[in-house]
Amino acid sequence: MGAEGEEGAVEAATGFEVGIVVPKLSRAAAAGAADDCVARLVRELEGAGLLVERVRGVPAEFIKLAAPMGTLGRAAAEMQMKKLTYIGMELQFEWDQVAAFVRQPDGSLFSWRERYCCFRYLIYGIVNKTNSEIVLRFDDKEFHWKQSESLLTRLEAEGVVKLVFPLHDEIKRKQLLRNWALNWLEFTWQPIDEIYSYFGTKIATYFAFLGMYTRWLFFPAVFGLATQLIDFGSLQWLVLPGFFIFVISWAVLFLQFWKRKNSALLARWGINCSLSEYKNLGNELSFLSDSLTVEEKEFGDVSAEKRKLQRNEWFGVLLRIRNNAIIVLAIICLQLPFELAYAHLYEITETEVTRYLLTAVYLVAIQYYTRIGGKVSVNLIKYENNQGEESSSASLVYKVFGLYFMQSYIGLFYHASLYRDILALRQVLIQRLIVSQVLENVIENSIPYLKYSYKKYIAVHKKKHEKESPVGRSVRLSTRVEKEYLKPSYTASIGAELEDGLFDDFLELTLQFGMIMMFACAFPLIFCFAALNNVTEIRADALKLLVMLKRPVPRAAATIGAWLNIFQFLVVMAICTNCLLLVCLYDEEGKWRIEPGLAAILIMEHALLLIKFGFSHFVPEEPAWVKANRVRYVAQAQNVCSKQLLRSISKFDRKLD
Amino acid sequence: MGAEGEEGAVEAATGFEVGIVVPKLSRAAAAGAADDCVARLVRELEGAGLLVERVRGVPAEFIKLAAPMGTLGRAAAEMQMKKLTYIGMELQFEWDQVAAFVRQPDGSLFSWRERYCCFRYLIYGIVNKTNSEIVLRFDDKEFHWKQSESLLTRLEAEGVVKLVFPLHDEIKRKQLLRNWALNWLEFTWQPIDEIYSYFGTKIATYFAFLGMYTRWLFFPAVFGLATQLIDFGSLQWLVLPGFFIFVISWAVLFLQFWKRKNSALLARWGINCSLSEYKNLGNELSFLSDSLTVEEKEFGDVSAEKRKLQRNEWFGVLLRIRNNAIIVLAIICLQLPFELAYAHLYEITETEVTRYLLTAVYLVAIQYYTRIGGKVSVNLIKYENNQGEESSSASLVYKVFGLYFMQSYIGLFYHASLYRDILALRQVLIQRLIVSQVLENVIENSIPYLKYSYKKYIAVHKKKHEKESPVGRSVRLSTRVEKEYLKPSYTASIGAELEDGLFDDFLELTLQFGMIMMFACAFPLIFCFAALNNVTEIRADALKLLVMLKRPVPRAAATIGAWLNIFQFLVVMAICTNCLLLVCLYDEEGKWRIEPGLAAILIMEHALLLIKFGFSHFVPEEPAWVKANRVRYVAQAQNVCSKQLLRSISKFDRKLD
Repeated sequence: MGAEGEEGAVEAATGFEVGIVVPKLSRAAAAGAADDCVARLVRELEGAGLLVERVRGVPAEFIKLAAPMGTLGRAAAEMQMKKLTYIGMELQFEWDQVAAFVRQPDGSLFSWRERYCCFRYLIYGIVNKTNSEIVLRFDDKEFHWKQSESLLTRLEAEGVVKLVFPLHDEIKRKQLLRNWALNWLEFTWQPIDEIYSYFGTKIATYFAFLGMYTRWLFFPAVFGLATQLIDFGSLQWLVLPGFFIFVISWAVLFLQFWKRKNSALLARWGINCSLSEYKNLGNELSFLSDSLTVEEKEFGDVSAEKRKLQRNEWFGVLLRIRNNAIIVLAIICLQLPFELAYAHLYEITETEVTRYLLTAVYLVAIQYYTRIGGKVSVNLIKYENNQGEESSSASLVYKVFGLYFMQSYIGLFYHASLYRDILALRQVLIQRLIVSQVLENVIENSIPYLKYSYKKYIAVHKKKHEKESPVGRSVRLSTRVEKEYLKPSYTASIGAELEDGLFDDFLELTLQFGMIMMFACAFPLIFCFAALNNVTEIRADALKLLVMLKRPVPRAAATIGAWLNIFQFLVVMAICTNCLLLVCLYDEEGKWRIEPGLAAILIMEHALLLIKFGFSHFVPEEPAWVKANRVRYVAQAQNVCSKQLLRSISKFDRKLD
Repeated sequence: MGAEGEEGAVEAATGFEVGIVVPKLSRAAAAGAADDCVARLVRELEGAGLLVERVRGVPAEFIKLAAPMGTLGRAAAEMQMKKLTYIGMELQFEWDQVAAFVRQPDGSLFSWRERYCCFRYLIYGIVNKTNSEIVLRFDDKEFHWKQSESLLTRLEAEGVVKLVFPLHDEIKRKQLLRNWALNWLEFTWQPIDEIYSYFGTKIATYFAFLGMYTRWLFFPAVFGLATQLIDFGSLQWLVLPGFFIFVISWAVLFLQFWKRKNSALLARWGINCSLSEYKNLGNELSFLSDSLTVEEKEFGDVSAEKRKLQRNEWFGVLLRIRNNAIIVLAIICLQLPFELAYAHLYEITETEVTRYLLTAVYLVAIQYYTRIGGKVSVNLIKYENNQGEESSSASLVYKVFGLYFMQSYIGLFYHASLYRDILALRQVLIQRLIVSQVLENVIENSIPYLKYSYKKYIAVHKKKHEKESPVGRSVRLSTRVEKEYLKPSYTASIGAELEDGLFDDFLELTLQFGMIMMFACAFPLIFCFAALNNVTEIRADALKLLVMLKRPVPRAAATIGAWLNIFQFLVVMAICTNCLLLVCLYDEEGKWRIEPGLAAILIMEHALLLIKFGFSHFVPEEPAWVKANRVRYVAQAQNVCSKQLLRSISKFDRKLD
């Protein structure tokens, strides 16, 4: 390994990027025992080529890990990591052919996600290679490390290793804090490339989307403000329909242009495929592993295999339909009556006190309901074999969004359609938007801090209690790593194993988008509130990630995935609800006769639906220059290597024969 | 060339697949002259490695060409033809690495389209390689063959070569005639693979679609028949809405399952990509050539190039919007009043004679109108730089379909909505469907035959006249090639250069689909007529291709392209128009009050639209087994060749540095 091409080995090692938490022993105990498991772990980690630093903190002891490039490269080759090459094809990484692989925008060989994968592979790849069990000791406990068992899994099972987590890189973190989180002056600008190289594709995509959404929000915000401030005189009746048409076109264009931006981002991050190809990519890989296991069993019988795959596919589709039916029924039969009952009771109660009481009861009940709903969804999708169009995370997103959609909007619909009271609707809208957004931002940022403070207090207090230090010197958290350890991690409120905290952030964003779009005609000013809110949201989320939380585990996704479909769905819903609102505004006497005005609204609805589906065809999803760059370089490489490639392939063909 | 791997060279030559038509000289003139251009052409063709057979026919002389595999392979390598390899990547063909390339389903190396490309390359690639002009003679004329000028282009310009056209393969043609065109007993079954290897992907796709469409048509046909025959008693009012919902779901499922079938066909024909990737493929290739020319000019300045590409892209979009606006305005401002005027006049005239007169005038006028519209569309898209989402052929399809859509349906809409006369509408529907379909089938099949007979008569007559043979022996067409030469070619009625005859066939099919879908509620029995018509259509079209026409030039398309979008559009239109029809049926008194029934219809419309766009998500476009096969084999090959590939690529990288 690494004998032929050594050009990569001179590269610097990474910083300390991964931490392992083990309980603290007294210095004497740790030094004394030769078969102490923590010492063994450290020796094995060093043996695997990692750079190890041990830090004794107040709540526990920490093992910080860094790796030279060579070690990471070897790990990548061993785990057969696929990596993009210059001919535009993903091939297994080989350390001695490192020149064939495309580098990161900042010049490094591996992205943060790839590095983290390698780290995990190295850490969990330490197995007992001897022919006998090894006895390890921890404090007083003794346990056996079986043959070819992973040391870390064993230690985790014994409770010795409490956590393996990614560490912040202090220099880059400070830099990002300065350039990004505290950079309030530049409204929506963000250093996306730096975010990418520090947090990975998924989080960078979220912030790119949030930034672009906020920038685009200024257009309808200005128009909305204008409708409130300017008196249009005799044309006043045209203002609301005009605003409606403008907002729908705006949303369609925004989503289409987001796709273009996403394509450009993919290209910048060295993901060499178009947006539509990228969507299929995940499925293919999961398919591959699936079909390879089938292949091992019976390779010869092609038609039997085809039948089996087809059966599996349709079974999966049926299962998905059943699960969706369950969720939809649960929403309609359980949640809808509950929400309507609340809206109705709120409307008919007279004293303020009972209203507050009612709202409190409602809020508690809704908390439980959504939590149960989320749990049920997570359990349901576990039994789906998601190999078709949707990945399991997309499936979860749809289900949970269904719950929240009903919860957030049904009360508003109730006000809008049944009472036809536009002013009351506006009031509720403002309440909801401001209260929910402000509250959520506060909660989002304060809860992690409170959690951290509480944990810190517990740790320090316990320490003090244990030591009873006679000198009375105050115990303080001194090292960075122990502070990070005590910080909460970035996880979703429903099911931590499937999604990270972006789930909640996206949910908040879509619910906001739905609210401002679906009730645009009732209250055009709402776009201003949303725009202001989002400007603060960008910096608040950045602060949360950089200061309040552990560094998140990097994830592979590089698009906003299922959320884009939800945004599209909300646009269609917005067309229908705004038409309903216009009818309410227009048809004041409730005659429900199809007069010219009403007919005009119906026609407008259909025309807008047509625009929605027709318009997006005019804006190509991938900018021309992105496509040109992508295709040209690959074509050039393919042409140059063509002959050698062919020789390799025809050799393979002969091998098969 | 061909020195290393000779395994392909022993393969048999192709049949005589291409014919060149030259004027007939008297035997004496042909034999006498050494610098006769036809003799020179034959010598050069033989020099290029082709097998040549000269046939003296009645109307002209024919040069029939065949090629050994080696010649074709060399041509393919010289023209840098891209061909699928076992690693799933298209690479330039190399004759000595022939084992790396995927073979056709029937075992041959090249498909019919690839062979035809090679033939054309070889024929038109004969250039004057000497350092001086060569003087060629034809009959009495003398002309100069310039340096490095293509001989065939020169001869075409001088009028010596009249036509280069693909020849039928008599054995395969007879076989297809027996198995396919005359095989009336098997209703919709067709030997798609044989059609593919004889006619290429585009025509095979059309027949696969037609067959599947006809098979699926039997379901609504049976339901439609049932609604007419069975008396549902008190549930009678539910029958039409039920039929409506069934038909829409049927159409959505049909189109989705067609996509799956198309994916399976792509896989069977060795096109190694999913349906959505295939759609982008054409664009990328066109892009490539576009961007490569840019690259030659200025490679260093990346941002300038990006700006240029972006400018081009948006300019193209604007141009496309402008062209579409022109077409839409022309349709609305010119065609709509005309059609409405006709419908109205037809309604108010009283005597049968004036009606017939009116219809005759209308038919003549409409012929001119659509012809002019087609010409305008063809001219408009010439100025579009179609490099974005749509190819130029798709753009043409949309524009021409717009014309025909208005022409075919506006009269029906007039009857349906303004007069609310369902019985009259039914009558018009039957008339249109039967008359148009029967007439079109008759015309479609008789016009080519009449054309052929006329040409034959002219040729024979001229011959007789020339010879004035004293013996009085009758002149007859004796060879196959001259008969084929006289047959009409398979071209579209609008602009032969852009589309082949499939354009007309698809147009007929979509207009039929639109008619049966959009007026499904007015006349459920119409599906029976359509099903019966299509069963005959399959065999009639097959006969036309095999017997009536020249063998068509093979084309690359392997999906139904823009027509699929039009089918989808017609489904959406059908939802709206059927709702309108139901309203007409329900709201007999014309009160236009939104009563529960009317509201129910509106709700149903929205629900169906939702189904239309939501439902297709449940049926994956590519069957699981197709995907598994595609991905697995490629992955296997990639894994085996991985190291060698990497070595090739890293060498390329060093070259670039």
